[in-house]
Amino acid sequence: MENKKIPYKIYLDESEIPTKWYNVRADMKNKPAPLLNPGTLQPMKAEELYPVFCEELVAQELNDSDAYIDIPEEIQNFYKMYRPSPLIRAYFLEKALDTPAKIYYKFEGNNTSGSHKLNSAIAQAYYAKKQGLKGVTTETGAGQWGTALSMACSYFGLDCKVYMVKVSYEQKPFRREVMRTYGASVTPSPSTTTNVGKKILAEHPDTTGSLGCAISEAVEVATSTEGYRYVLGSVLNQVLLHQSVIGLETKTALDKYGVKPDIIIGCAGGGSNLGGLISPFMGQKLRGEADYRIIAVEPASCPSFTRGKFAYDFCDTGMVCPLAKMYTLGSGFIPSANHAGGLRYHGMSSILSQLYHDGLMEATSVEQTAVFEAAEQFARVEGILPAPESSHAIRVAIDEALKCKETGEEKNILFGLTGTGYFDMVAYEKFNDGVMNDYIPTDEDLQKGFDGIPKFPGNEV
Amino acid sequence: MENKKIPYKIYLDESEIPTKWYNVRADMKNKPAPLLNPGTLQPMKAEELYPVFCEELVAQELNDSDAYIDIPEEIQNFYKMYRPSPLIRAYFLEKALDTPAKIYYKFEGNNTSGSHKLNSAIAQAYYAKKQGLKGVTTETGAGQWGTALSMACSYFGLDCKVYMVKVSYEQKPFRREVMRTYGASVTPSPSTTTNVGKKILAEHPDTTGSLGCAISEAVEVATSTEGYRYVLGSVLNQVLLHQSVIGLETKTALDKYGVKPDIIIGCAGGGSNLGGLISPFMGQKLRGEADYRIIAVEPASCPSFTRGKFAYDFCDTGMVCPLAKMYTLGSGFIPSANHAGGLRYHGMSSILSQLYHDGLMEATSVEQTAVFEAAEQFARVEGILPAPESSHAIRVAIDEALKCKETGEEKNILFGLTGTGYFDMVAYEKFNDGVMNDYIPTDEDLQKGFDGIPKFPGNEV
Repeated sequence: MENKKIPYKIYLDESEIPTKWYNVRADMKNKPAPLLNPGTLQPMKAEELYPVFCEELVAQELNDSDAYIDIPEEIQNFYKMYRPSPLIRAYFLEKALDTPAKIYYKFEGNNTSGSHKLNSAIAQAYYAKKQGLKGVTTETGAGQWGTALSMACSYFGLDCKVYMVKVSYEQKPFRREVMRTYGASVTPSPSTTTNVGKKILAEHPDTTGSLGCAISEAVEVATSTEGYRYVLGSVLNQVLLHQSVIGLETKTALDKYGVKPDIIIGCAGGGSNLGGLISPFMGQKLRGEADYRIIAVEPASCPSFTRGKFAYDFCDTGMVCPLAKMYTLGSGFIPSANHAGGLRYHGMSSILSQLYHDGLMEATSVEQTAVFEAAEQFARVEGILPAPESSHAIRVAIDEALKCKETGEEKNILFGLTGTGYFDMVAYEKFNDGVMNDYIPTDEDLQKGFDGIPKFPGNEV
Repeated sequence: MENKKIPYKIYLDESEIPTKWYNVRADMKNKPAPLLNPGTLQPMKAEELYPVFCEELVAQELNDSDAYIDIPEEIQNFYKMYRPSPLIRAYFLEKALDTPAKIYYKFEGNNTSGSHKLNSAIAQAYYAKKQGLKGVTTETGAGQWGTALSMACSYFGLDCKVYMVKVSYEQKPFRREVMRTYGASVTPSPSTTTNVGKKILAEHPDTTGSLGCAISEAVEVATSTEGYRYVLGSVLNQVLLHQSVIGLETKTALDKYGVKPDIIIGCAGGGSNLGGLISPFMGQKLRGEADYRIIAVEPASCPSFTRGKFAYDFCDTGMVCPLAKMYTLGSGFIPSANHAGGLRYHGMSSILSQLYHDGLMEATSVEQTAVFEAAEQFARVEGILPAPESSHAIRVAIDEALKCKETGEEKNILFGLTGTGYFDMVAYEKFNDGVMNDYIPTDEDLQKGFDGIPKFPGNEV
């Protein structure tokens, strides 16, 4: 088994695509804290979430006991359009680094959304369709989620209204056109189409928008329009559940060749890719069956894990959503305008926050010029131009591989390559022109965000 | 064999990547006519081509007798970065069309160049490196070839100078940035960096450029710079040779499942993809072992097969290249500015021209709004946003599948999906906005191009 020659790309058979999602919460001793009703500060009941989310997705959101949840046949069918995704042995990169480490990456970018986001988009669209809805609303930042949802909605004939963070809307007109090609309507956020958008524009007329703000707009439209619900591409428990297909496929592929990763690395914005990639490995760790070093990588300009507070906070700027317990920079935090990539959400998945709090995973932050240096090096030797988000994981994977070069250790390094950077060329252009710079928020910058975290007994920050 | 369930995506094993290219010329009774020296009108000798092309590539260009040519190990190794490419059964499209036809497509877009062009780029870069050159020059239109060559040159540490048709340079800044990320220099053509560029600019100061003009500039730089040669991404015999990997993989995959295509469809600009896709099938046809209906699809706005002349013509606007016998619209022909996609070269591969002339394949032309309608439909059901070029083949594949619906025939339809449209969103935007229109050149338009075809005995048009 160990000596079986490992190909450049490991493709599973279609029959090996998972038929069940894995719910890591079932194996967690310390469950992620429940969502709270911001008025009563009591845990949200399913009924309270129904105006916002589809009923079956609410059930998934609240289910922390079932380890496996069946993937409906229609979703399995759609997965065959672009899954299994390849697990790639980075032979070219290893050679370029002259490292004894063995590097593997799970590449989720070989679909038109350009990222892993499609894994959850199709699930959420499916349950919306099943519930007989007309359409869904959502926000998008870098645009990967919006594109994925447009594709999923187009497949099921659902209307799709996307609120796109204004700075991305302007910098990424081509992303917008992909969404339109799939029939979605795309509105720059904040906009005058919602009360919350109008309010934010009145207070901050020059704002370039934020994910938290776009979420507020999308939720307002969903809850005030007959036959619509809101869907979200990250952070939520249900999203990590759907994204477990990434980790399940990865583990199946590695097991075939008898490879056990020593280090598992993923970029972390809201946590959807990282949570999905690590889930079956974390499950083993929680059950005491195996140990792995797991590293979340976030931008130094939006450091929720490494510099945030573990507290209940608003999920959105408009404070229309439930409170979630998570590592957070405060719902008013907006990364510096020079921050080029995604991973700009102020908070972090409750599941990952709890795991990090319990010492089951590490986190580190990296600066963007170092990230783009890694991206360029990777693109040149591995032939895939990576998304800026994914390149955070590449940076740390390369650094770990270089440490192995020093120590001579033949570690197995696994990372998640969430997507491609074909719609991020404005950022690459800055890097190519040598005008990209770094910005690390000061403690004072962060304090402003922390000041917005709600105060109530048990939630001192 | 026939009853084996065909998966959505057929991936060959790495060990099944071809180790030899197939040279269809070896099986042609009527060989493609040789390149002529425009001064003497005699066939170009190898020595005459050495100032322009690498020596081993010249040998491949002139070799019409060896059916198989070994793929050097370094190129085989690079192919593992992104090959084998999937052969996809279009189950979703078949269902959407409600056709009894079975549709297959060979998808060459899962690499950062976004197309099949990388198959020849890496070969040409390899031979340049082997010859000890410093770098290569080339032209690019839609940008796929330039991107592919940048990737290949980056891999071998070669300098890469790209002349990009000015209209594309302006409409596709992101393509330019991908090339720069891979270390290439990109110059809009016509430019003031060459004599031929200056001359064209003096005569036509407002020109948006053409492939023929960019070729002239690239050739001039290659032949006047120590340690440089020129490389071309289509039209040439050597390119079709390298692209035979597409057809060879396709045939291996289909043979595994006992599937024989009834119709093979490919878009045709210079002929690189079509020539590569059909080569092993055409070989069988030439040897009398099997019959296939083969259809070349070209834009109605640049109809070299369907309305061009079969004659010796200049390959470039500046008339610095040898004469090639081909279906041509004249080297001065430039498609209407409203033509959105690639496939804008005035001529066609000599190999394909001869095969078409001999009745071994068909050709048809399609208008661009119909092409984008097919592209949108395909993107929505198959989950891949296709390049405008590739969408020409999709259009005809859909039309043939709809004919099968009428007749009830269960034909096997195979087409080449050459690449993705992620850098073509300006064209998609026009389509989404409903402002795309068609333009078919009049006979008078074409006559102007024909007037530029050189006149000499035996070359009456």
